[in-house]
Amino acid sequence: MAALPKHILNGYRVLDMTHVLAGPTASRLMAEMGAEVIKVEFPPQGDVSRVLPAHKNGRSGYYTQQNRGKRSICLNAKTPEGRAILTELLKTVDVFIENFAPGVIGRMGFSWEAVHKINPRVVMCSISAFGQSGPLSSLPGFDYIAQAYSGVMGMIGDPNGPPSFPMVSMGDISTGVHAAAAIGFALLHRERGGEGQYLDISLLDAYTGYHELNIHLYSLTNGEVEPTRSGSQHFAVCPLGLFKSRDGYVCIIALQNQWAPLCRAIGRPELIDDPRYCDNAQRVAHASEVIAILQAWCDQQPDDEAILAALQAERVPCAPVLRIGQVVSHPHMLERGTVRVVKDPKLGEVLMPGMPLRFSGFEHNQPLDAAYLGEHNEAVLSEVLGYDAARIEALRAAGVLYANPET
Amino acid sequence: MAALPKHILNGYRVLDMTHVLAGPTASRLMAEMGAEVIKVEFPPQGDVSRVLPAHKNGRSGYYTQQNRGKRSICLNAKTPEGRAILTELLKTVDVFIENFAPGVIGRMGFSWEAVHKINPRVVMCSISAFGQSGPLSSLPGFDYIAQAYSGVMGMIGDPNGPPSFPMVSMGDISTGVHAAAAIGFALLHRERGGEGQYLDISLLDAYTGYHELNIHLYSLTNGEVEPTRSGSQHFAVCPLGLFKSRDGYVCIIALQNQWAPLCRAIGRPELIDDPRYCDNAQRVAHASEVIAILQAWCDQQPDDEAILAALQAERVPCAPVLRIGQVVSHPHMLERGTVRVVKDPKLGEVLMPGMPLRFSGFEHNQPLDAAYLGEHNEAVLSEVLGYDAARIEALRAAGVLYANPET
Repeated sequence: MAALPKHILNGYRVLDMTHVLAGPTASRLMAEMGAEVIKVEFPPQGDVSRVLPAHKNGRSGYYTQQNRGKRSICLNAKTPEGRAILTELLKTVDVFIENFAPGVIGRMGFSWEAVHKINPRVVMCSISAFGQSGPLSSLPGFDYIAQAYSGVMGMIGDPNGPPSFPMVSMGDISTGVHAAAAIGFALLHRERGGEGQYLDISLLDAYTGYHELNIHLYSLTNGEVEPTRSGSQHFAVCPLGLFKSRDGYVCIIALQNQWAPLCRAIGRPELIDDPRYCDNAQRVAHASEVIAILQAWCDQQPDDEAILAALQAERVPCAPVLRIGQVVSHPHMLERGTVRVVKDPKLGEVLMPGMPLRFSGFEHNQPLDAAYLGEHNEAVLSEVLGYDAARIEALRAAGVLYANPET
Repeated sequence: MAALPKHILNGYRVLDMTHVLAGPTASRLMAEMGAEVIKVEFPPQGDVSRVLPAHKNGRSGYYTQQNRGKRSICLNAKTPEGRAILTELLKTVDVFIENFAPGVIGRMGFSWEAVHKINPRVVMCSISAFGQSGPLSSLPGFDYIAQAYSGVMGMIGDPNGPPSFPMVSMGDISTGVHAAAAIGFALLHRERGGEGQYLDISLLDAYTGYHELNIHLYSLTNGEVEPTRSGSQHFAVCPLGLFKSRDGYVCIIALQNQWAPLCRAIGRPELIDDPRYCDNAQRVAHASEVIAILQAWCDQQPDDEAILAALQAERVPCAPVLRIGQVVSHPHMLERGTVRVVKDPKLGEVLMPGMPLRFSGFEHNQPLDAAYLGEHNEAVLSEVLGYDAARIEALRAAGVLYANPET
């Protein structure tokens, strides 16, 4: 097989029955850390993300971003032969990840109870919207559905209108990070003499965990304080919000220590000790005035750089709200590899987010290729399971194995 | 010392020089998994989160949520004796976490180079807004600042107005999860014979990673497609958005497979094959009509339950946009422990988010107490470093050690 990147997870094998986003994110991080990830797809389409735009030379950028560095086998899991292959693979792996709706993997014959019997050493991780238990668990779920139930969606947007939802799949991706974390700790447990175990990771648990204070604040005040969304200005901290600039918007934050520097930065030192603005409570009480002062100052600046330079000179926390085109060309992003150039055999050079886990002992942003559908059917069955060429060809002819080099 | 929960990280010791949120989240997860976490705070205030509301009996709910299960030592790190204690502790720990602005920990004498010399086995994790390298790294940063630079903030809110920002610290908390994941893999590396190493985790890297498609879509189309925020209705998928209901808002999603079920659910089967709505491209082209049809149907329903029941009966993905008061009382949340009752010695019973990492081999949602400032000064110095009572008392009298049982 192709060389895996020299990294922490060398020597671990992962059976990856995930699709679209949360699950593939977990196994993608493991591939970037050197695990041998065998992704299982089903004919004729494979992972539905293979048909998501944009495409180039038949390859989906979406699929590529989430699946670089994984081997692809494509088989019909409804056939006895297909299931037998999966069972045999399970005997050889360290980790098994799936993100079907709860119950589906069990009906395929690979519930935790079954998997644990097949291989007591395996760490199995199920990823779902609501988790494997509880009254919502059987409902269909996507990122935004879990976001809505968690209370996070209600915390985003204008307080006098409908919530807004982020046009990023932060729930799926961060849940994939949660799953990778749990798998890492479960492997650590195994290395220290423990057994395999089952991990139940959900978008709802991850999203709900993002309430750093909303839940306990509501609880401790017996419901008297029910935090809600606050638009583009924070309801309880002032100034903390977005201001129109020539080029778009800038975010400006001044907590107590930053009020004096902010006043100096905008050339209004007389406001530092103004009793109307002397502490956060006063500034919140006079928020419309504070916001108007800052907006008027922004309006007077020749460009966004001038706003940022003046504030940065006083170390006032500030940022331009970057558009995607600005993100991908920002010097910090490129120097740090937060946005990286990926070279794909079919896509060519394409920009993608960098690997967010950085280890001093290993290369960051490994060169890895995405696979076409079923690209590693022969390699996996021969190298891992010892099937000979005739047996593999018979499985192919019988429609158990499938491949599509055009993907 | 008090018994640690029986869990995966038993036997590991963490020196935790973190404050407020991203760092404390990483060490909090480790405490929940049984690590001995020694949190270092500075007199007289300690972690600034101790003064964040709401308080009860002198204790902050905010501090408690992020710091349950950690021991607290409070010392003056500007004194030679304070630094000597930290150096001696570093010789005994497996993990060292800090989230000061880049450079600060080095000026305290505990850069990675110094720490690695003190203890080559230690895994050191630095958490920052922009990372330890690159032109932005020295700027002051908070969650929203990194969110703005990452391009995520620009993807949230009404397309014709300013962005909105979420009233949850999802960046800090999910970056803490990234850090915990990286630490887990670094410990795994050590258990397999490797050395300690340095981990550079940033909010900007984590946030940028949430762009599941925006960056490669912009890149593959050579900038012709620049995704941006889309308010409360998705610009490229229809229907996917929020609808006003009697009680608030509901989120409704129908991808291709769900259009027919949705039409049946709302009693409009004739729309299934209507050429204006037959596929997503057509529905997006007629989005205002589709949205109006769904809103009119919602308006006719007697209550939110009726909307959800009709859609769920056809397995159309949907959700109420829950307010915090609804989140904390939802049966699924409570049954699953996604929201849990924490019993704190000073706060009493208070609701908090549950532990998002669930392991079949270990108890979920461990009972853990938060510490008052400096509560474990004596215990840590005597048990871990072998100081006798006279030496500890001398350090206390000299102002090197500090405690405040009222916190």
